[in-house]
Amino acid sequence: MSAKHGIRDKTAIVGAGCSTFAEHWEKGAEHLIVEAVFEAYADAGIEDPARQIDAVFCGSLYSAMGPVDVSEALKLYKPLASVYNYCATGTEVVRSACMAIAAGLYDTVLAVGYDKPKDRGVSGPSVTYRGVRDLPATPAGWFSLAAAPYFAKYDAGREDLARIAVKNHHNGTLAPKSFLKKEITVEDALSARMIAWPFGLYDCAAQTDGAAAVIVTRADLARNYPGQPVYVKAISSHCAPNPHTDPDHDFLRWKATELAAADAYRMAGLDDPLRQIDVAQVHDCFTMTELLSYEDLGFIPKGAAKEHIASGTFALGGELPINTDGGLKSFGHPTGATGVRMIVENVLQLRGQAGARQVPGAKLALSHNIGGYPTGCAISILGVE
Amino acid sequence: MSAKHGIRDKTAIVGAGCSTFAEHWEKGAEHLIVEAVFEAYADAGIEDPARQIDAVFCGSLYSAMGPVDVSEALKLYKPLASVYNYCATGTEVVRSACMAIAAGLYDTVLAVGYDKPKDRGVSGPSVTYRGVRDLPATPAGWFSLAAAPYFAKYDAGREDLARIAVKNHHNGTLAPKSFLKKEITVEDALSARMIAWPFGLYDCAAQTDGAAAVIVTRADLARNYPGQPVYVKAISSHCAPNPHTDPDHDFLRWKATELAAADAYRMAGLDDPLRQIDVAQVHDCFTMTELLSYEDLGFIPKGAAKEHIASGTFALGGELPINTDGGLKSFGHPTGATGVRMIVENVLQLRGQAGARQVPGAKLALSHNIGGYPTGCAISILGVE
Repeated sequence: MSAKHGIRDKTAIVGAGCSTFAEHWEKGAEHLIVEAVFEAYADAGIEDPARQIDAVFCGSLYSAMGPVDVSEALKLYKPLASVYNYCATGTEVVRSACMAIAAGLYDTVLAVGYDKPKDRGVSGPSVTYRGVRDLPATPAGWFSLAAAPYFAKYDAGREDLARIAVKNHHNGTLAPKSFLKKEITVEDALSARMIAWPFGLYDCAAQTDGAAAVIVTRADLARNYPGQPVYVKAISSHCAPNPHTDPDHDFLRWKATELAAADAYRMAGLDDPLRQIDVAQVHDCFTMTELLSYEDLGFIPKGAAKEHIASGTFALGGELPINTDGGLKSFGHPTGATGVRMIVENVLQLRGQAGARQVPGAKLALSHNIGGYPTGCAISILGVE
Repeated sequence: MSAKHGIRDKTAIVGAGCSTFAEHWEKGAEHLIVEAVFEAYADAGIEDPARQIDAVFCGSLYSAMGPVDVSEALKLYKPLASVYNYCATGTEVVRSACMAIAAGLYDTVLAVGYDKPKDRGVSGPSVTYRGVRDLPATPAGWFSLAAAPYFAKYDAGREDLARIAVKNHHNGTLAPKSFLKKEITVEDALSARMIAWPFGLYDCAAQTDGAAAVIVTRADLARNYPGQPVYVKAISSHCAPNPHTDPDHDFLRWKATELAAADAYRMAGLDDPLRQIDVAQVHDCFTMTELLSYEDLGFIPKGAAKEHIASGTFALGGELPINTDGGLKSFGHPTGATGVRMIVENVLQLRGQAGARQVPGAKLALSHNIGGYPTGCAISILGVE
């Protein structure tokens, strides 16, 4: 008998916190960590972290100091390691926290994702990678490679991407801690300056500073905490070949998402995700990434994104609202924090605490976080039943 | 009832591999990863990794590419994340692997630590940190701060450190894959050029390139593999305040080791480590680190290291042989690989496969790996009973 995927319902989230996501020139990483973590402590009713927290998992891409950022900021000296999987780092941090609890190592642990990319002294998409045929490329340049083949095959275009940006900008206006609180129109998106065709400015996520945190405990201890427990139905991760060098890659999908989704649905026992999942946060580093994710996650058939974008399937009030807090696009993208922020938003949605952006009666929530070229994907499925 | 420390005997190591540790100017990280991992595959009788390995955990300090180094080198596309805890990264990688198995997520996983510091284009202790009172310092500079207060309080001196170097150089000559295969004398150590008082050249570990890997599986599946299973009795990690800024720090001990050791002994059910443990690998980035570790690990009382060094307690043939393969000092120190290499050596010792350096009848083995300033410590205790 295989124990594979035996993590379902073993762990629960009993506290969630998030800093504001912004260009925090006046704050250090330690301020953002403290903001997020102390909100999570308060949410979980934790008054004596040194006694009540058994271990810490953290993740950051631009940290100068590593785990010491977290231990010194919180003055919390516990088992503490850092986890890294590019832009999917945040979800990996929570995955490690869940593994540690389910393994029987600890009762209650803290997971923290954070980043202060603005402290690097550069603005804009500063990271240069090697692109196709070893040409230099920014993230916008290489994620955009998926657009032309998709547009050609499925008769889609920049307007479809623009509608995703409009949706996420709208949702961001409803989230108190989001960075961009600005409605835009399809025309705004189409007429914005070009970054890397077909991505204009509004097709690209907003890089910000920020931190997010959750408290994870054993499922059987969750009722000891004041809030409604949110159970981890699945937390999965998968890698795939580097798309830039994979001879089988068709640029119409990101394989890592397909693999991680199959694993997560098996863990959670799902077979019809569009109908079974009530709310989702998906990785929208670029609008095209969100579009592909609708299909890669099996919400809709391959090539059907255009019609579902037009009909509002993924808007607030639609069948499966996606990126209810604005996503990377509008809430912001402090790389190591993003996966944790998605989980925090899902916790709020499942508890009915999401205010103006609440999805009524949400019982099952998915978050999807990709990283690398993209080579990795991590997915969580949370539920209140 | 608390589940804390419930990981004991849930997981087993069924395969171990290690590259040669050296200045591998002619090889890339991918070559070293393949060397170590395919030796571990062969050891475990794994012929079809894509079917038999469920997930991968990796760790490196100087990797340019992150987890993609490992997936592309091995062409193994699985759940894959990277773990980081400074020089204790290697043990954290194995800890993550054990957590994943014990959590019920996977049956069998691969843990890989690797580094190619020589590719950074620098030689020597190139890393500059901020030291005491914000003066710049290399690792040698700041670890040496522990020496003067210890020497003063316990009437120890450079000769005691030199004897540790002599022991580890001797042990390294008995390990086929070690970097430095050179016997030295106390006089050699004392007369070597000074690096940071009281550390001469032979008090400092040899930085090398290298990789090490282990295959971890569920304890109840371990007998399906060809070799003698080695069970994980404890795998613990702890952090402590940064010694450079901690007002309570006395420089006579590293608190993280004391905390991690207490945790590991509780997990493994030990109360007399010197007598119960048969062989140990301890972090000897500098000879002073090994000296303090004898005491911080509770093998001997505080201040007693000098007499035990003189009497040979920790030499091959002594009561508790330490750093049987030469340690960081002589086997080499490719940062992310070091903790895994220690565990590989303990696996060999426990199976009676350690050749000329074999500790007869070893049944219980400890490895100790510190990282940061040092702020973190990770410990494994492995056994064959």
